[in-house]
Amino acid sequence: MKPTDQPNGRNRVVIDQIQPVIEGGRYPVRRTTGEWVEASADVFADGHDVVQCRLLYRHHSERRWHSVPMEPVYGHTFRGSFRIQREGLWQFKIAGWVDHPLSWQHQLKRRHQARERLESELLMGAQFLRNVLTRCRAEEQEAVQQLVDLFTDSDRYEQAVQAALNGAAQHWFLAYPADELCTESAVVRIMAERLRARFSTWYELFPRSAASKPGHHGTFSDVQRLLPRLQEMGIDVLYLPPIHPIGLTNRKGKNNSLRARKGEPGVPWAIGNKEGGHKAIHPQLGTLQDFRALLKAAAEQGIEIALDYALQCSPDHPYVKQHPSWFRWRPDGSVQYAENPPKKYQDVIPFNFETEDWKNLWDELKSILEFWIQEGVKIFRVDNPHTKPMGFWEWVIAKIHEEHPEVIFLSEAFTAPKMMYHLAKIGFTQSYTYFTWRQTKAELMDYMEELTKSEVREFFRPNFWPNTPDILPFHLQSGTESVFITRLFLAATLSANYGFYGPVYELMVHEALPGREEYLNSEKYELRHWDWDRDTRLKMLIAIINRARREHEALQFTNNIEFLNIQNEHLLAYLKYDPAGSAHLLCVANLHPDHTQSGFVQVPLEKIGRTEEQEFAVRDLLNDARYIWKGRWNYVELNPRILPCHLFRIEDP
Amino acid sequence: MKPTDQPNGRNRVVIDQIQPVIEGGRYPVRRTTGEWVEASADVFADGHDVVQCRLLYRHHSERRWHSVPMEPVYGHTFRGSFRIQREGLWQFKIAGWVDHPLSWQHQLKRRHQARERLESELLMGAQFLRNVLTRCRAEEQEAVQQLVDLFTDSDRYEQAVQAALNGAAQHWFLAYPADELCTESAVVRIMAERLRARFSTWYELFPRSAASKPGHHGTFSDVQRLLPRLQEMGIDVLYLPPIHPIGLTNRKGKNNSLRARKGEPGVPWAIGNKEGGHKAIHPQLGTLQDFRALLKAAAEQGIEIALDYALQCSPDHPYVKQHPSWFRWRPDGSVQYAENPPKKYQDVIPFNFETEDWKNLWDELKSILEFWIQEGVKIFRVDNPHTKPMGFWEWVIAKIHEEHPEVIFLSEAFTAPKMMYHLAKIGFTQSYTYFTWRQTKAELMDYMEELTKSEVREFFRPNFWPNTPDILPFHLQSGTESVFITRLFLAATLSANYGFYGPVYELMVHEALPGREEYLNSEKYELRHWDWDRDTRLKMLIAIINRARREHEALQFTNNIEFLNIQNEHLLAYLKYDPAGSAHLLCVANLHPDHTQSGFVQVPLEKIGRTEEQEFAVRDLLNDARYIWKGRWNYVELNPRILPCHLFRIEDP
Repeated sequence: MKPTDQPNGRNRVVIDQIQPVIEGGRYPVRRTTGEWVEASADVFADGHDVVQCRLLYRHHSERRWHSVPMEPVYGHTFRGSFRIQREGLWQFKIAGWVDHPLSWQHQLKRRHQARERLESELLMGAQFLRNVLTRCRAEEQEAVQQLVDLFTDSDRYEQAVQAALNGAAQHWFLAYPADELCTESAVVRIMAERLRARFSTWYELFPRSAASKPGHHGTFSDVQRLLPRLQEMGIDVLYLPPIHPIGLTNRKGKNNSLRARKGEPGVPWAIGNKEGGHKAIHPQLGTLQDFRALLKAAAEQGIEIALDYALQCSPDHPYVKQHPSWFRWRPDGSVQYAENPPKKYQDVIPFNFETEDWKNLWDELKSILEFWIQEGVKIFRVDNPHTKPMGFWEWVIAKIHEEHPEVIFLSEAFTAPKMMYHLAKIGFTQSYTYFTWRQTKAELMDYMEELTKSEVREFFRPNFWPNTPDILPFHLQSGTESVFITRLFLAATLSANYGFYGPVYELMVHEALPGREEYLNSEKYELRHWDWDRDTRLKMLIAIINRARREHEALQFTNNIEFLNIQNEHLLAYLKYDPAGSAHLLCVANLHPDHTQSGFVQVPLEKIGRTEEQEFAVRDLLNDARYIWKGRWNYVELNPRILPCHLFRIEDP
Repeated sequence: MKPTDQPNGRNRVVIDQIQPVIEGGRYPVRRTTGEWVEASADVFADGHDVVQCRLLYRHHSERRWHSVPMEPVYGHTFRGSFRIQREGLWQFKIAGWVDHPLSWQHQLKRRHQARERLESELLMGAQFLRNVLTRCRAEEQEAVQQLVDLFTDSDRYEQAVQAALNGAAQHWFLAYPADELCTESAVVRIMAERLRARFSTWYELFPRSAASKPGHHGTFSDVQRLLPRLQEMGIDVLYLPPIHPIGLTNRKGKNNSLRARKGEPGVPWAIGNKEGGHKAIHPQLGTLQDFRALLKAAAEQGIEIALDYALQCSPDHPYVKQHPSWFRWRPDGSVQYAENPPKKYQDVIPFNFETEDWKNLWDELKSILEFWIQEGVKIFRVDNPHTKPMGFWEWVIAKIHEEHPEVIFLSEAFTAPKMMYHLAKIGFTQSYTYFTWRQTKAELMDYMEELTKSEVREFFRPNFWPNTPDILPFHLQSGTESVFITRLFLAATLSANYGFYGPVYELMVHEALPGREEYLNSEKYELRHWDWDRDTRLKMLIAIINRARREHEALQFTNNIEFLNIQNEHLLAYLKYDPAGSAHLLCVANLHPDHTQSGFVQVPLEKIGRTEEQEFAVRDLLNDARYIWKGRWNYVELNPRILPCHLFRIEDP
């Protein structure tokens, strides 16, 4: 952090080690509305004088800075905090000064203890008070003047000393600090997003498989019909894969076969044909009017529609003819399709972001977002952002957020953590994660430690998915109900943002391509039909868990988690708490798919505000069972054939 | 680190996590001439293309950047290095680009392995080679053109494929990289100082006590007479406390008594009287001519004179009358003397750095340095820099270094580590440390870890002192010879910069004020006489240790240290090595003052390039004893009554 240049050599205070800050202020810190920013810094000066400082903050639209005093914590470290009240960019900075009146006050006590005469000190105190007089309110002036008179009246020496020592003057020095020679730190930016950036419950479905009867191409109206059951399940974000016209050239068939047979629908991510591109709707799904109706109906149920922002084209996309310079052309005159040799994706061609026409390309790609935002879409799931330039993302997200800070971007970058974190730094709201493959107790604890206890917490918001259309992890392939329950329970309670690839998960679909973590007969390549009327126990549990998430703030923050000792390698136990620290949920999951596991969990009594002797109750929100516990170590037992998890709320007995 | 703004959206490479860097580039990294800068960074781009990067560096006086390629280390991390050739400010930055020809080369192999036809690829390779043609030297053009012809000749397909695969093209792509769309990082600054900044051997004496006969006030000529014995002892910096006229008002007497009796000489740090201030010489020490003679004689012996830069005045200093606004005045009209209530330093008055006339004050204080630099002084020991503003130090050191990068500043700030490290960041060359009080094995190892293995190593150069005129640590107060030997041995081998308060240490003076770590009858307050002709065993050992330091580069770097296992809590063992890793010294110290200690020390055989079976010799440079060792664990035994330390050089047997 480079401090602002100090034009005044008289300013003696140095401010450094400001927290939170990301890469020295290069990227904004991330928060959501309602969250607190706890800022700290080392603030110090030469010598032994008292140093004071305050935290200044404002929304970028405000001219005036708000101000709160910072309190010393230890050594030279001070801390202060403020609450984020609205969306958009915020700024904070720290101002520190050598406070001579308070140094005087501090020294006065030590001089008095050393039995020094204080005449000269009182005169100095009077000088400081006269400075207060120039700034205090009219109705305060008389009180201050009386103190000045007392301090300068040698006949009332003893009375003046007592007044000086008992804080009569200090009151004014704190109210009107002598901060003329104040050092200000550089400004740290904070990007504040809405609550749903931090707390969201996603459901993914392919609208073309939403038809109520097999063999029919689903439509937006079909999706609309499913909204009440989604709402019942506690879903608040419904994510639809690309809804645009699908290319014909090199169209893929069932199970990713190289050539589609006649009538096969193709991959929705092969965007664009003669009917339009990223701003058009696949005619078989419906019209723009139908889509608007779906958006409206969803909003009425408290559900937002998330669209896919997939920056690639089918060879038939109108852009290819309109803007040939936006693509790469091979020496043989063919367009360069997507590949990572020897893998090929012949139905998809990438943009050439190195085109000299990059400014027009960027503008056009931004206009896609603006088009759908205009229609009311405020959430985008971004396909493979790690294969498009970082400079583009930083620019386009900042531009969109200038007008629409409410827009949420979910990054789908299953790649090196370095890149995933970088995408978060440059603006993505949420990110898919490695949760999908973190299975054992140690793996899950290590991963949560990285996400919630390192600096990653300041910019990266995980969104945990037990499955996606691209990933059917091996542990789900047995189809065991307990595993489906546990994985969803973990996703929903470890992370405040989570989602699942819906009908397939509810119905515990688990048939994979042999030896692969991919769905057999994936609906990426074909129409599927799901029994939308079937109510599984899993679906009921999802609804219960999501209700618990809505009703307990503890589950709406990812970072406030503490793992608990439990002497069984298959049992994972953790405490979740709300920011006020007043409500506590204790989660236990049996990670073994088949066998009952038991053990004693160590409850951090101080944290939950109980003593060794105090009884307390734990109510399992999953099945309403209630137990009375006492002391640190308490017994739990989970039979995966019955219910593999506890979601205990700690209550008075 | 804020990257330079990228005017070009086509640049896809991101560069971050640059090392070394201090507070995001706010302060320069520190090196000495001859040292290497090992730079690393995370350099990455979207997608799967090959990313290349290079390290650019220059002395600030150069216009052209030098360039070395950076090599991938792991993940996205690249590393490169360059050697500091001269003093002054250096700059480095990193340039990264997506290398399409190398990506092509990489993919070509994979395509070939997948048995693809490569006609189109060869045409693309020919395009890349044509780009090389526009940049390569005239004599290279024929070779490149032949390759272009081959790649575009369909009749020679097989031959072309072989040429493409065997690196014939790659050779040119590496020589003339396609780096048009190159991203450059921000510039990191490095302050390079001369060797003595890193490796120095200090001796402190009060010139007024240098007289050969008791009862006489020592002079510069007396000091000059002592130079040969200092040179014999291996000293290269002779530090003299302030040599200026001493104030009379409130002059302190023997043992810090409040009033000096007639004839008492006062404290040298109470600078200034009617005979002059910081640019004058105390008449009893000699004239400016005498001082010049001393400097010259010292230089001839390879010894530099370090002066004290103590920014405070006696009440009689000419500044007080000439610039009353540079001091604080109390309401009763008296000048504010130095105090930290209830402690008072009545013979000294501090500058008021908050004066509105601060610019003139800063200029005058800088001119003091310039005055002595002009006379040939290139080393300053700075008294209590933590009680003067940080902004002043950053400014004055930078200003002096602009003209005189050879000037060395030793910071005497015995205060919070935060402040000590900050002073180093803003420019101080070396610093006194807490070594003086680190006594046990654990304390010494922890402290060395902090200094040499954390980021502190990039800016803070410790200077270890076993004693100073202000500190006679309790462990020296018994006067035990073994403790004097061990503490000096530790200072001289743990830190490349060390020093001692000389005659007093040589003679093992240890009488303290009762219960205090202060010398009884300190020469801070009175003239003392020392027996300069007495040769102690300690003096002889100092000479031997300092010769070892001169002859072994391993002892000229503080950071290249590795502590060794040795199963005795009183034995401290460590390996020191030179930057090339070719010469090794193995140090062992018995920390117990009285009792013989023995144990097996674990030798890191890989590090010293020996196998389990190979014998090697260790020669003790202190007494020329030689032992044959073998394998990892070897026996050592140290009797403190004989010699409490080993300084082993590892040799062939």
